[in-house]
Amino acid sequence: MDIQQLKALLEAVATGNTTVDSASQALKDLPFAELPEARIDHHRALRCGFPEVVLCEGKTPEQVRSVGRELLEHGEVLLATRASVSHYQSLAQVAPDAHYHEQARLIVVDRRAEPPSEGHIVIATGGTADIPVAEEAAITAEVMGNRVTRLYDVGVAGVHRLLAHQELLHSARVIIAVAGMEGTLPSVVTGLVSVPVIGVPTSVGYGANFGGVSALLTMLNSCASGLAVVNIDNGFGAAAMASRINRTPAS
Amino acid sequence: MDIQQLKALLEAVATGNTTVDSASQALKDLPFAELPEARIDHHRALRCGFPEVVLCEGKTPEQVRSVGRELLEHGEVLLATRASVSHYQSLAQVAPDAHYHEQARLIVVDRRAEPPSEGHIVIATGGTADIPVAEEAAITAEVMGNRVTRLYDVGVAGVHRLLAHQELLHSARVIIAVAGMEGTLPSVVTGLVSVPVIGVPTSVGYGANFGGVSALLTMLNSCASGLAVVNIDNGFGAAAMASRINRTPAS
Amino acid sequence: MDIQQLKALLEAVATGNTTVDSASQALKDLPFAELPEARIDHHRALRCGFPEVVLCEGKTPEQVRSVGRELLEHGEVLLATRASVSHYQSLAQVAPDAHYHEQARLIVVDRRAEPPSEGHIVIATGGTADIPVAEEAAITAEVMGNRVTRLYDVGVAGVHRLLAHQELLHSARVIIAVAGMEGTLPSVVTGLVSVPVIGVPTSVGYGANFGGVSALLTMLNSCASGLAVVNIDNGFGAAAMASRINRTPAS
Amino acid sequence: MDIQQLKALLEAVATGNTTVDSASQALKDLPFAELPEARIDHHRALRCGFPEVVLCEGKTPEQVRSVGRELLEHGEVLLATRASVSHYQSLAQVAPDAHYHEQARLIVVDRRAEPPSEGHIVIATGGTADIPVAEEAAITAEVMGNRVTRLYDVGVAGVHRLLAHQELLHSARVIIAVAGMEGTLPSVVTGLVSVPVIGVPTSVGYGANFGGVSALLTMLNSCASGLAVVNIDNGFGAAAMASRINRTPAS
Amino acid sequence: MDIQQLKALLEAVATGNTTVDSASQALKDLPFAELPEARIDHHRALRCGFPEVVLCEGKTPEQVRSVGRELLEHGEVLLATRASVSHYQSLAQVAPDAHYHEQARLIVVDRRAEPPSEGHIVIATGGTADIPVAEEAAITAEVMGNRVTRLYDVGVAGVHRLLAHQELLHSARVIIAVAGMEGTLPSVVTGLVSVPVIGVPTSVGYGANFGGVSALLTMLNSCASGLAVVNIDNGFGAAAMASRINRTPAS
Amino acid sequence: MDIQQLKALLEAVATGNTTVDSASQALKDLPFAELPEARIDHHRALRCGFPEVVLCEGKTPEQVRSVGRELLEHGEVLLATRASVSHYQSLAQVAPDAHYHEQARLIVVDRRAEPPSEGHIVIATGGTADIPVAEEAAITAEVMGNRVTRLYDVGVAGVHRLLAHQELLHSARVIIAVAGMEGTLPSVVTGLVSVPVIGVPTSVGYGANFGGVSALLTMLNSCASGLAVVNIDNGFGAAAMASRINRTPAS
Amino acid sequence: MDIQQLKALLEAVATGNTTVDSASQALKDLPFAELPEARIDHHRALRCGFPEVVLCEGKTPEQVRSVGRELLEHGEVLLATRASVSHYQSLAQVAPDAHYHEQARLIVVDRRAEPPSEGHIVIATGGTADIPVAEEAAITAEVMGNRVTRLYDVGVAGVHRLLAHQELLHSARVIIAVAGMEGTLPSVVTGLVSVPVIGVPTSVGYGANFGGVSALLTMLNSCASGLAVVNIDNGFGAAAMASRINRTPAS
Amino acid sequence: MDIQQLKALLEAVATGNTTVDSASQALKDLPFAELPEARIDHHRALRCGFPEVVLCEGKTPEQVRSVGRELLEHGEVLLATRASVSHYQSLAQVAPDAHYHEQARLIVVDRRAEPPSEGHIVIATGGTADIPVAEEAAITAEVMGNRVTRLYDVGVAGVHRLLAHQELLHSARVIIAVAGMEGTLPSVVTGLVSVPVIGVPTSVGYGANFGGVSALLTMLNSCASGLAVVNIDNGFGAAAMASRINRTPAS
Repeated sequence: MDIQQLKALLEAVATGNTTVDSASQALKDLPFAELPEARIDHHRALRCGFPEVVLCEGKTPEQVRSVGRELLEHGEVLLATRASVSHYQSLAQVAPDAHYHEQARLIVVDRRAEPPSEGHIVIATGGTADIPVAEEAAITAEVMGNRVTRLYDVGVAGVHRLLAHQELLHSARVIIAVAGMEGTLPSVVTGLVSVPVIGVPTSVGYGANFGGVSALLTMLNSCASGLAVVNIDNGFGAAAMASRINRTPAS
Repeated sequence: MDIQQLKALLEAVATGNTTVDSASQALKDLPFAELPEARIDHHRALRCGFPEVVLCEGKTPEQVRSVGRELLEHGEVLLATRASVSHYQSLAQVAPDAHYHEQARLIVVDRRAEPPSEGHIVIATGGTADIPVAEEAAITAEVMGNRVTRLYDVGVAGVHRLLAHQELLHSARVIIAVAGMEGTLPSVVTGLVSVPVIGVPTSVGYGANFGGVSALLTMLNSCASGLAVVNIDNGFGAAAMASRINRTPAS
Repeated sequence: MDIQQLKALLEAVATGNTTVDSASQALKDLPFAELPEARIDHHRALRCGFPEVVLCEGKTPEQVRSVGRELLEHGEVLLATRASVSHYQSLAQVAPDAHYHEQARLIVVDRRAEPPSEGHIVIATGGTADIPVAEEAAITAEVMGNRVTRLYDVGVAGVHRLLAHQELLHSARVIIAVAGMEGTLPSVVTGLVSVPVIGVPTSVGYGANFGGVSALLTMLNSCASGLAVVNIDNGFGAAAMASRINRTPAS
Repeated sequence: MDIQQLKALLEAVATGNTTVDSASQALKDLPFAELPEARIDHHRALRCGFPEVVLCEGKTPEQVRSVGRELLEHGEVLLATRASVSHYQSLAQVAPDAHYHEQARLIVVDRRAEPPSEGHIVIATGGTADIPVAEEAAITAEVMGNRVTRLYDVGVAGVHRLLAHQELLHSARVIIAVAGMEGTLPSVVTGLVSVPVIGVPTSVGYGANFGGVSALLTMLNSCASGLAVVNIDNGFGAAAMASRINRTPAS
Repeated sequence: MDIQQLKALLEAVATGNTTVDSASQALKDLPFAELPEARIDHHRALRCGFPEVVLCEGKTPEQVRSVGRELLEHGEVLLATRASVSHYQSLAQVAPDAHYHEQARLIVVDRRAEPPSEGHIVIATGGTADIPVAEEAAITAEVMGNRVTRLYDVGVAGVHRLLAHQELLHSARVIIAVAGMEGTLPSVVTGLVSVPVIGVPTSVGYGANFGGVSALLTMLNSCASGLAVVNIDNGFGAAAMASRINRTPAS
Repeated sequence: MDIQQLKALLEAVATGNTTVDSASQALKDLPFAELPEARIDHHRALRCGFPEVVLCEGKTPEQVRSVGRELLEHGEVLLATRASVSHYQSLAQVAPDAHYHEQARLIVVDRRAEPPSEGHIVIATGGTADIPVAEEAAITAEVMGNRVTRLYDVGVAGVHRLLAHQELLHSARVIIAVAGMEGTLPSVVTGLVSVPVIGVPTSVGYGANFGGVSALLTMLNSCASGLAVVNIDNGFGAAAMASRINRTPAS
Repeated sequence: MDIQQLKALLEAVATGNTTVDSASQALKDLPFAELPEARIDHHRALRCGFPEVVLCEGKTPEQVRSVGRELLEHGEVLLATRASVSHYQSLAQVAPDAHYHEQARLIVVDRRAEPPSEGHIVIATGGTADIPVAEEAAITAEVMGNRVTRLYDVGVAGVHRLLAHQELLHSARVIIAVAGMEGTLPSVVTGLVSVPVIGVPTSVGYGANFGGVSALLTMLNSCASGLAVVNIDNGFGAAAMASRINRTPAS
Repeated sequence: MDIQQLKALLEAVATGNTTVDSASQALKDLPFAELPEARIDHHRALRCGFPEVVLCEGKTPEQVRSVGRELLEHGEVLLATRASVSHYQSLAQVAPDAHYHEQARLIVVDRRAEPPSEGHIVIATGGTADIPVAEEAAITAEVMGNRVTRLYDVGVAGVHRLLAHQELLHSARVIIAVAGMEGTLPSVVTGLVSVPVIGVPTSVGYGANFGGVSALLTMLNSCASGLAVVNIDNGFGAAAMASRINRTPAS
C-alpha cells in the first residue's frame, strides 16, 4: 500500500464511502498489526508459497502436537521435519492420518483432494549413505507439489554411472545433488546440464571431513557455474528452494 | 544419442545412406571424442546454456587475449571475470568492441543483434560496500539475457528500508541478496517472498568476520526456507544460477 | 576498606585504642590477606553486587552441598547453575527450601523477605528450542532482583511477528535476545530500539552451525550498534550483564 | 500504534475531527512508508538514540561526502568511522568544521551548542598498542554525549597497576576494557567492580593470536559475570553499547 | 577407441564385414552406455585393478548382504570395510566363507585358488593404539595381493627403536607409516629410505589433536620429500595406494 | 663418541689394551644397535631421567598388564596414565601393590625404599573442575620424586584469592598453573613470581571454549614472560616438564 | 651393521687384519658420527635416492650460493626450489650453467653426461592457473630422471575433456593431478586408471577456499581409492614422491 | 612490604614517631597504590627477575624512546623486542650505546660492569629459515645472563645430524628447540635428553602450515614428555622461560 492508496482509503472514510471497520480491517493487515495468533505465521502460505513447517528438533512431543493441531485447523497440509517416533506418536493423537517417514525423519499430513504435481525434480546422490538426506528432500518436494525422480548412488568414483543418465538429468527442471565425503557430484552434474542445480553436502564420511564441511567447501568452490548450496544435511532446505524454482512461472 | 539413434545411424551407414565420414563426424561429437580444440569447451553453450566464461585471475593478459579471440571466433558474446585493466587492454587489441566494467571487474563483448531479455531478477545489497559484488552479478545476469533491477543498501540494521520495497521484491522471478558482515539480508528477504533467493556472502567487514565466513554461515543456517548460497564474493556464480532459474520454462 | 576506614584505624593505633597487633591483624586482611575462608569469595556481594554463584558442572553433588551450605551461612540467596537433579537433591538436604528449575538447570534458594524488583528486562528468543537458555537468563535475572518479561518465538523468518511487539521492546531498560541457527534476532532488535541489547547465541541448529559458532559470528558482526554478546548458551552471563545495567543509577 | 488507536484515528477522519492530510501524515510515519529519502535512515536518532553513523571502509571519498552532506542537512552531529585522510579531505569540502582523529580513524562534525555530557565511562587498555581501538571508543562515546576517562596500559602482566585504580573503576557507570594478545583485562576488571563491563578484543599480537580470536575467546569464556563482548577492534561498537547503557534512566 | 578405430569400425559396417548389431554392441560399451547393471561398477577391476570395495558405514546389514552377493556372483574376492559384527553376520548368510577381522573392521571373502603375492609393503606404527588402523591397511594390502611385514610401536619418542630396523625398511618396495598424536613417524621414515612412503594420520590422542588433524598437518608439512598422505584413520586408502605402487611394473 | 675417541678405542684394541668384548660392549651401546628388547625403551630412565610411562588409552587391559609386568622386571617404579578401573584390575594381578588414583586416572607402583623428594612444585588451579587434571600432575610429580603443594580454586574472577598466596608461590622452584574456560591463571601467576610457570589448559567450560582451545590460546598469547604451555588436559606432561626443571642442578 | 659384524671387525683390528684407519673409516660411516660437513647431508643421495634439495624461501641469496657451491663440489646435479631471481643471480656467480625456471621458481644445475630418463609420469591440471605448481612438479621430476608428459587444463567442469585423454592416462606409471578451487580432478582421474595418483591441491581460488584447504579436503575425502596427497602448492613434493614410485623396481 | 615492616610502621604510629597521615600514605602504597610512575612496572626486576621488556610492535619510535629513557634511568639493562630500524634510531638518540640486532629484531642496552653468565642453554633449529627466531631467543637469553650455544640446521629430515650432537645436548641445563613446517625437532630432542626442552614453533613453511599452527600442534601433541611450548615465533618468550629455569637454584 503506497501513500496514494492510503490517502484514497482515508478519503473514502472521510466521505463515508468506507466504514471505519472495513478501513480498520484493511489497515490492520499491514505486517506489523497486533494479531492474537501472530506467533504462528498463518500468512506464510500466501507470502512464501507453503505453510509454516514444524522443526521438531528441540521441541517436546507435546509442543509438536500443539503446534500441529493449530496448523491443521487453518490448513490442509502439515510437514514436520527432524521428527522422532515419539514426535509422530504424539501428533498422531490429534491427526490419525499422519504418516511417518522414518528414514527421512518426516511427518506428513496431507488432506488435499488432489495434491498438485507440477514440474520435475531429479534428486541424485553420490552414495547409498546419502539416501536419508535425499529422502528428506524427495518427500518434502512431493508434499510441496513437485514431481520427483530419484537417481541414487551415481557418485563420481565411477563417473560412467552418471554419464549413463544424462537424458534423465536433462529432463529435470531443477536438480538436487546430494553428496558427502569429497562432495563432487553437484559439480559434475552442473557441468552436464543447463538447469539449476542445488548441492546438498552430507555429513557422511570420516577423518578430515569435519561433519560435512569438506563436501560443503567442495560445492562452494565448484568451477561449474549454475550451482548453489544449502546447509549440510539440509534436504528439507534444498527441496524448499527447488520447489520455489519449480513454481516460478515462465517469463 | 541413445541406442535407437545409434542403430539408425549405423543402418544408414550399412545401406549407404550415410557416408562413413559423416557418420564418423556425428559419432566423434560424442562427449569423449578427441577433438583438436577440445580444451576450449565450445559445446558448453548447448549443454549448459551459455558459452564458456573466462576467469582472468591466474591468467596472463596474453592468455586472456588468446582464449578470448578463439571464443569470439565461435560465438557472439564473451564474458571475462575478475579482470584487471591490463587483461582488458590486452583483449581490446583483438576485440575493440570490448567493454570494461571496472567496479565489477568484468569484460563484456556482445555482438548479438538483439540481446535477449527475459524474466526479472532483483539484486539487493545490505550496504554500499557490497556493490562491487552485486555489480558483478548484475552485469553477468544482463549479459546472460536477464532483466535486472538493482536495490542497493537496504540492510536490516534498519529493517524498514527493506519492507518499503516489498512490491518490487514480489515482482521478481528470482532474487539475489548480497550481504557482508552479519549477512542477514537473504534470510529476511526469503521470509518476505515466494520466489527463490540466492544469497551471496561478501568479504566486507572486519574482526571476526573471517573474510566473509561469518556471512556465509549466517546464510547457510538461515531459518527461512527457499534460500541457497554461493561462494563468498561470487557475484558471477549467483548470476549464473539465477539465469538458469530464469530460463527454466514453466512446467 | 576505604581510605577513611584506614585512617580511622591508624588514629586508633596512635591513640592507643587499638594495639599494634590487632591493627596489624586487620591490615593483613586487606584483599590479598590470608583468610581461612578466602577461597569462597564472601566479599563479592559488596564488590560485584551479587554473591558468588555456584557452577555445578564439574562439581560432585557433595561439593555443591558443601559450598552451598557455606554460602547460605553468610547470605540469604543462593544461585547454582548447570545443575543436575542429583546436585539439587544433595543441596536440598541442607537447604530444604531450595527450588529446582529443570529446563533452566538452575537451583535457587531465596530467603529475602522482599526480593527487590527494579527495572525491566525483556528476554526474546528466535525459536522454541532457544527457551532453555532463555529461561536460564530469565530466572537468573529474577533472582538478581529484576522484573522480567518473556517474549519467545519471535524469530526473523517472519519478521512481522517481532515488529508487532515494538511497544514492549521499547518499554525495556535492557533486552536479552537469544537465538540459534543464523542468530539474526539480536541485530534486528537492536535496530528497533534505543536500549542496550545483549545477544546470546545458542547451540541450536545443525550442519555448519558448529555448535553455535554461526550464531555467535552473526551477532559479533552485526551492523546494528548497541549490541554486545556473551558466550554460546550462556543465559546466566547475559542475565548478570543485564542485571548490572539495570542496577546502574541514572547519572 | 495499536488497533484501538488506529480505529480512533479513523473515527476522527470519519467525523471530520482530523483532516485526511494529517491522518495520512500520521499513518505514513509507519515504518514501511515509501519515503524518497528512505535509504538514509533519518528516523534512527529517534528510534535508536543517535543518528546513522557512516562506515567509510568500502566507500569512496565521494560517497562519504555525499552521504555526509545529506546527514548534516538533517542533523547537527556527524560521526564517520574507519575513515582515511582522503575520506576526511573529501568531506571537509562540504563540512569545513569537520575534525579528523587520525589514530582513531574517525571524522567528527559537532554543531550542537552544548554537547550533552552525562554518565561516566572508563576506558581501559591492556597495552599501548590497544590505544587506537580505545581512542575509537573514547571519541565515539564523547560524541554520543558521555563523559570519558582514559586508563591506558594497565594490563594484567603486572596486576598491581590495575588494582591501584580501583577507585576510578568503581566511579564509572560502565567500563570498556580493551585488550589484545591474551585478552585477560576485561575478566579481571569485571571481578573487581559491580558495573557492566564491555570487552573489546584487539588484533594486537602475533603467532597463535589469529588476528584477535585468542583475545575474543578469552573474553567469551570469562568466569567473571557481568561482561559482554563486541567484535575484534570494534571500539565504535563498544562505545555505542556503553552509550546506550549510560543513557538508560534509573528505574 | 580413437578416431582411427572408429572409422575402421564404420568402414566394416559399410562394407558388410560387421553387422549393425555387433557394431552397435561395440559402440554402446563406450563408458557412458546405459547398462542395466551400471550402478555396480563391474568394470572397476579392469579399470582400476581391484573390484569395487564395500564401505559398510552408512549401509544396513541387508544392503551389505545384497551388494556382497551381487559382487561375488561376478568375482572371486570381496572386501568390505568399516564393518560391524552385524554386517558380517548378514553377509555370512550368503557367503559362509567370509572372514571377519574385528580389530580392522574388515570382512574378507577370498575364493582365488592362489592369491597373488608380489612386492613387499612394510607397515609401521608409532604406538600400539595405532594398530587397528594399521591392521585395516595390512589386511587390505594382503587381500589386494601384496606381501606385508608389520613393524608396530616404533614411534620417535625413542628414535633408536626405529633406527634398529633400517634394514627392514630398506627392503620394502613401499612403506605405510601410521601415527597419531604428533604424527612424526612418516617424516623420520622418509628421511631414512629411498622408497615411497604413505603417511596415515590416526585420530589417536587428546587435547589439541583435533581428531587427528594435528598428525595430518605434521605429515603434510614434512620437510622430508617422498611422502604422501591419506585421510585420517584411512588404513584402507593407504593400502590401495600402496598396492597400486607395488603393482607398477618396472619401466 | 667422536672420531678421536673412536680411533683411540680402536688403537687400544689393536694394541691389546682393550679386549674385543669390552670394545664391543662400548660400541654396541650406540643408539642404533639391534637389541632384542628394543621396543620397550629400558634406556629411557638413563637417557631421560624416568622410566617409560604407560599410556593406557587405546591399550587393552591385557596389553597394559603385559607391558607393566615387563617394566617392573627391570625397575622399581611404574606409572600408567589415562587408566580405567579395568586397566588397574588387570595390572593388579601381576602387581598387587599397585595403587589406583581414580580422579587422576593414574596407576602407581612404587617399590623404592626411599622415594626421592627434592625441590618444591606448587600446583594451582583456577576452579574445582580443573582438579582431576591437577591431580594427574600432582601424583605424577610426586612419583617422579618432587615435593608438591596443591593450591586449588584460586582463579582470577576474584584475583584477591590468588594474591593472598604470594608467599607460597614464591617458595616454589616451579609452578604448574591449571585452568579451563578463559585460562587466565597462568598469566597472572607468571606476572607475580620469578620461577618458571607451566600452563595446563583444561577442557573445562562450554560454548566457544572448543574443548580447551580457548584456554590454550590465552596461555600461548600471554603477555607475561616466563610461561610455557603443554597440551590441553595434559597434567602428566606438565609434571614431567616440571620434574625435569626441578632436577636440574644449579649451574 | 649388527653386533656380529661389529665383533668381526674388531677381531680383525685386534689381529692386525684390518688397520685402525680403515676400521675407523668403516665405523665413522655410522649415521651419528661427528663429521665436519655433517650439516649438509651428503649421504642423502645414497639413502634417499637424490641429493639434498635447497629450499630458497627463508634463505638469503648468499646462503643459497654458499650451500649450492658446497653441494656442487660433491655432486653433478643441484635443485633449488621456491627461488627468486636474486637467488638465481647469486648462485649463477658460482654456477654459470645454472638455469632458472621462472614460473616454477626452480633453479637447476645438471652436469650429468646423460641424465637418466625412466618411467613415465603424467602431470594433469584442472585449470591454467594451476600451471606454476604443475611446472614445479614437472621440472623437478625431469631433473630427478623421469619422463614427463604435461596434460594441462582438463578440469571436471567439462568432464569430457578429461575422458578424451584416457589412453594417455593409462600409459603413465604414476599420475600427478594438480587442482585448486574444488580440487576434484585427482578423484576423477583415480577412478579412471589403475596406477597410483598423487593429488596436489593448489591455493588457486577465492572466497571459502581458504588458501587451498578446500581442495586439500576434497582430495583427502575422495571416494576413489589409489590416491594420496601432498601439501598445498607442493609440486616439488609430488614429484619427489612420484619419482620414488617410478624408480621402484618391479618385485 | 612484608609483615615485619608492617608491624614496624604501626609501632612508629603508636609511639608517635610517624604521623597518621604519613603512615596512611605509606600503606596506600601497598602494591595497588597510586604511584606516578606506576604504569612502568619498576618492581618487576625484583618480582620476576628481569626488568620490564619493551615490545616495540604497535608502538611509535617516540614511544619506544620515551619508555626506554625512563627504564634506563632506573636500571642498567634494556631489552626491546620486535624492533624496527626506526625504533632503534629513535632510541639511540637517548642511548648511544644501544645495539641493534637486525635479524633478531632486538635492541639491547647493557651497562652492567660484568654481565652475569650462569648455566648453559642450547638453542637448536630445524632449518636455516628458523634462525631469526632462534637469534631472538639466543640474544635475549644472553642479555638475561645465560651462556648460550647455538646448534642450527639439525632438522629431522636427516635425523643423523642431530644424533651427532648428543653430547652437546646433554651438557645443557635447558634446551630451546626451534622448528617450523612439521615442527618435529623438539619431540626428537626431548626423547634424547633428561633436561627440560622448550619448543618454539615458527611460521616458516607454506600450504597447510597455517602460519605455524602445524608446528605448534605437533609440539603440543608430542609423545615425548619433558617438553613445553611457547607461542609461534616467540623466541623471546622461550628465552625468558629458559632463563627462569636456568636461574632456579638447586633444591
